[in-house]
Amino acid sequence: MRVAVLGMGSVGRGVLQMIEEKDLGISVTAVADSRSALIDKDGISIDEVLEAKAKSGFCGDRSLTAMDVVKKAAYDVLIEVTPTNADTGEPALTHILTALEKGRHVVTSNKGPISREFSRIRSLAAARGVQVRYEATVGGAIPVMHMLEHGLAGNRVLAVFGVLNGTCNFILTRMAAEGLTYEQALLEAREMGYAEADPTYDVKGIDPAVKLVILANTFCRKPVTLEDVEITGIDLLTNDALRLAEEQHCTIRLIAEAIPDRGILRVAPRLLPLSHPLVVEGTLNAITIETDMAGEITLIGKGAGSVETASAIIGDLLYIRNFHAERHPKKT
Amino acid sequence: MRVAVLGMGSVGRGVLQMIEEKDLGISVTAVADSRSALIDKDGISIDEVLEAKAKSGFCGDRSLTAMDVVKKAAYDVLIEVTPTNADTGEPALTHILTALEKGRHVVTSNKGPISREFSRIRSLAAARGVQVRYEATVGGAIPVMHMLEHGLAGNRVLAVFGVLNGTCNFILTRMAAEGLTYEQALLEAREMGYAEADPTYDVKGIDPAVKLVILANTFCRKPVTLEDVEITGIDLLTNDALRLAEEQHCTIRLIAEAIPDRGILRVAPRLLPLSHPLVVEGTLNAITIETDMAGEITLIGKGAGSVETASAIIGDLLYIRNFHAERHPKKT
Repeated sequence: MRVAVLGMGSVGRGVLQMIEEKDLGISVTAVADSRSALIDKDGISIDEVLEAKAKSGFCGDRSLTAMDVVKKAAYDVLIEVTPTNADTGEPALTHILTALEKGRHVVTSNKGPISREFSRIRSLAAARGVQVRYEATVGGAIPVMHMLEHGLAGNRVLAVFGVLNGTCNFILTRMAAEGLTYEQALLEAREMGYAEADPTYDVKGIDPAVKLVILANTFCRKPVTLEDVEITGIDLLTNDALRLAEEQHCTIRLIAEAIPDRGILRVAPRLLPLSHPLVVEGTLNAITIETDMAGEITLIGKGAGSVETASAIIGDLLYIRNFHAERHPKKT
Repeated sequence: MRVAVLGMGSVGRGVLQMIEEKDLGISVTAVADSRSALIDKDGISIDEVLEAKAKSGFCGDRSLTAMDVVKKAAYDVLIEVTPTNADTGEPALTHILTALEKGRHVVTSNKGPISREFSRIRSLAAARGVQVRYEATVGGAIPVMHMLEHGLAGNRVLAVFGVLNGTCNFILTRMAAEGLTYEQALLEAREMGYAEADPTYDVKGIDPAVKLVILANTFCRKPVTLEDVEITGIDLLTNDALRLAEEQHCTIRLIAEAIPDRGILRVAPRLLPLSHPLVVEGTLNAITIETDMAGEITLIGKGAGSVETASAIIGDLLYIRNFHAERHPKKT
């Protein structure tokens, strides 16, 4: 199987490293970063590309772009791991639509296009008879999409509840454990590299809301958008609230919940008993899927990280290779 | 897809009910209990069979046996859900081998044959080009086999840790929460229907050890048997031990663990911090899979129950239908 990798950030480099380290029968025939690209239908040297990127900041030829890769390279699967733009989904959206249009499978960690244009992307993939997979968009290393699709096949999903943002969970964990104020815990999260300089996207609950939209569109029939989500962040939480929770053997977590039958699509701080499966520590993520037959199934794992996200992407790649390779309509 | 169901206990009835309730495109062409059977290549009436079983104790014709179903009925998948015999694996083992020999897929919840004769069963299935699936043997509704196979595809599994016996977990939960003695908690488990009259198989750790063998054979290359597992049950635990654990913000759980690189295959009570993901309450099961890329992924869910086990079996059936139906070598 031949893949083209767009994006040479932490996720893209992690994917390339794992393809290099593991003997998976995957050949990389093109890579691109935001300013250069490298195309070789016989397969590029991953070591050389990673070294070039580390040394010069460019992975390849500055006269080539990511769109050149999408249009001209010889690949079966496009791996779209460029930075997320939650407003427009671009340039990832155009990369994905162009690859699908050409009858290529797509695997992505990019929340922008998947949360904004899911119906359009899914329809085009179906029309072209190819797969678009996005396990890495939600819950990092947690294979929640595989769980919904295969493990719980035949079940009706009644609700999904999740701790989907590691930054918020770290802040809440530290506020509860050490009695820190929100500001102190946020500062610590920044020092640890868990929060960005502008933490708005995380602490206002937008990031988990985007992930909730992706989850809901995966298991619900009715399409939803970010505008449908009622969002409350954690930035106004006081440590008094956490102390009160503790007195009741509870704590507070930022929970994203989708309950289609009750019209609920919400991200908000919630009081949970300390023994609740969603009460996970630090930057962990956790997702509970409530179903008609299996009851409640909870998944816990790392919500971010270069190799962890690569794990989700490689799971998607192998799924396509094992089950859909023969459905690929054309080979270049 | 046509299925034959062997076993009309709680699991078999649950599977039949779910096939009846859900429009899955599955036709039941034969059923058998321990003393009768019913075969109809055009599909039997599930309602009538369940009613007959409830009224008379027989699901069909007393002159027919389960082996008649295996040999003569028209089915694509054999669902083997007769009671487990952990010593011989029979009669399920013969049912499964005969169906595979005939080129039929097999789905089972039966721990006996899968824990005792895994290599033989897997080799025969491979030779005949059919699937043998056993999600329901471990962790009830938790789709751990799907997780190992698909969700974590590409990962190397370094270790598996699990709370695999709901009876023991209930007893330990009650001892910790209420300061009950082992005997008091066992009595309560019996009254709730969670423990059998002879609880040896559960409380001595044999049941979780059997499940550990199935898990280890699924993800390890080197086959293991029950004799390879070092087993300590919970029947000698005192509530002093649980009190001491509590003083350290810990509790005790019966943990099954397989760490192939260190040669560890063990079931034993273990001290865990209260915030540890494997510290689940009551009859819940939990499994942590430690991998090279995804890190630790924990799954929590109901470890038993008629509909919960049916969920695992139906997940396996749909997997076969979606991905392996076309590989079926012959249709009757």
